[in-house]
Amino acid sequence: MVQAKAWVLAKHFDGFPKNSNFELKVEELPSPKDGEVLLEAVFLSVDPYMRPFSRVHMKEGDVMIGSQVAKVIQSKNPAFPVGSHVVGNCGWRTHTVCNGKGLSPIMPDWPQDVSLSLALGAIGMPGLTALYGIEEVLDLKKGETLLVNAAAGAVGSVVGQIAKIKGCKVVGSAGSDAKVAFIKELGFDEAFNYKTVGSLEEALKKASPGGYDCFFENVGGPFSTAALPLMNNFGRIAVCGGVATYNDTTPQTGPYPHLTMIFKQLKMEGFMQTRWEHKNPESLKRLMGWLKEGKLQSREHVTKGFENMPAAFMGLLKGENIGKAVVAA
Amino acid sequence: MVQAKAWVLAKHFDGFPKNSNFELKVEELPSPKDGEVLLEAVFLSVDPYMRPFSRVHMKEGDVMIGSQVAKVIQSKNPAFPVGSHVVGNCGWRTHTVCNGKGLSPIMPDWPQDVSLSLALGAIGMPGLTALYGIEEVLDLKKGETLLVNAAAGAVGSVVGQIAKIKGCKVVGSAGSDAKVAFIKELGFDEAFNYKTVGSLEEALKKASPGGYDCFFENVGGPFSTAALPLMNNFGRIAVCGGVATYNDTTPQTGPYPHLTMIFKQLKMEGFMQTRWEHKNPESLKRLMGWLKEGKLQSREHVTKGFENMPAAFMGLLKGENIGKAVVAA
Repeated sequence: MVQAKAWVLAKHFDGFPKNSNFELKVEELPSPKDGEVLLEAVFLSVDPYMRPFSRVHMKEGDVMIGSQVAKVIQSKNPAFPVGSHVVGNCGWRTHTVCNGKGLSPIMPDWPQDVSLSLALGAIGMPGLTALYGIEEVLDLKKGETLLVNAAAGAVGSVVGQIAKIKGCKVVGSAGSDAKVAFIKELGFDEAFNYKTVGSLEEALKKASPGGYDCFFENVGGPFSTAALPLMNNFGRIAVCGGVATYNDTTPQTGPYPHLTMIFKQLKMEGFMQTRWEHKNPESLKRLMGWLKEGKLQSREHVTKGFENMPAAFMGLLKGENIGKAVVAA
Repeated sequence: MVQAKAWVLAKHFDGFPKNSNFELKVEELPSPKDGEVLLEAVFLSVDPYMRPFSRVHMKEGDVMIGSQVAKVIQSKNPAFPVGSHVVGNCGWRTHTVCNGKGLSPIMPDWPQDVSLSLALGAIGMPGLTALYGIEEVLDLKKGETLLVNAAAGAVGSVVGQIAKIKGCKVVGSAGSDAKVAFIKELGFDEAFNYKTVGSLEEALKKASPGGYDCFFENVGGPFSTAALPLMNNFGRIAVCGGVATYNDTTPQTGPYPHLTMIFKQLKMEGFMQTRWEHKNPESLKRLMGWLKEGKLQSREHVTKGFENMPAAFMGLLKGENIGKAVVAA
């Protein structure tokens, strides 16, 4: 018998998440039966999507959704030997018994000098999101100019670097001077702190007087309104996130985008990386290849202690992290 | 010497167009020089796009933009013999001298029993807009469900009929009971009067409990907000017009669409039919073929007299027309 701790959604979020939305529960787990494994969390992911998905995929009392890197500590499933590591959507739990369905072994030949936590970041869901957004949604071409917001985040920082690998001009927006310095280090051509520029529109124009061919949208809200008229004809917008609106109690509104979309013949597409999961093995290899070549850098914001998961999540939504926010169990 | 009458944009529109925005001018035209022709307008088009385009493509004092079917009455250009008919973007003018650039001869073998005015409607720009929106933007597939608004208009009425030809379920929204009766006659599966349904959302749900795969958007504004959450996963939206917002003095606002677009992985694309004009000859033949087979019906709202062009245009923006609004010179 193992004692598992789990963070439960005690009450649906209303506005910005509070400590009282979460409750820590302890439960006794049975030993794994034939075909099952017992997992122990090593790194747990906190991601912005958890905020809007909580309304759609969870009810009060459910364990918070999310993925983790876990170690197999007991196994009655030969596909997952004891001591091996997996990525699984186990939620915010220290220990999980499951039948192996939905678990992905860490990719073979994971280098010893690369933290397994990156399987939740640049070499995991956020990295795949960046890659598929750029290749499958935007079809970004060499020489084009790309705009990305939340650019110092887990997805945005990878977006900008892949766009540089592809020979594009990259403009990034982020919410602190330290974040701006970070993405400039990563090789972004232009970067600005949207909180201090005064006029967002002027900052966007100055960063790229020739407009934008592609826009990787992580933020939504007024940023989207400012960026839309600066898109070039036939511009493409990959809608990946809308963190500016996740905590709205009443939905923010903005001007309807139709006329601008018609005049400039813009394409805007919402997406989730799961759509291309059949490509994941090959895509993760490419991401790892770029990492090993030094073309893709990864920074993490690590919070220690499973008990601090709500704090890590709320910090993420406040923009406290640079790079991928993870919790070390 | 010929006297030409022309309607000029005397003052930029501010809100809904008024008579004082227009001014009728008379000018003496020179005789055509070598390579030139003298045209006499037969039918003139009034279209919703003229309202938003006036801001972008016209300055005060310019002749109103627009296309017309005209007869060649003098010619020093062998490509356009006297007595032949052309479609040209001559603007709101009774007579035009031009060098033939941008003029399209009426398609060969135009049937004698089909009014030439249809070259401004179902067998012209609005018909091509419907066709390209369906085939190039939406990539509409047999068995899918399509929603179209402003469905009794020049574009919308063709959209619904082409979607029926392709074996789809078609739901149309229009602004009067007479329009609803008209589109039902055209073969639309479901149709409703958005002005009298009470809840637009309920009307949309009732018309297609299984949701919508494609949405041909002519209206924008609150209609788009109501329709978006009823799209099916991977739904496509062709943004062709936004007539609900054309006369705004301050832009209307609505909830940002990002989260719905992400959850449902929706694609939304603004377009103009000029993008595919290389396909026009073949496309016009297909439209004419459907017309001759009785699969495509056309209704026109004809205003008599060039002097009534502003009234015809304002009537169009009020939704007074069923089918294509044209002016017989």
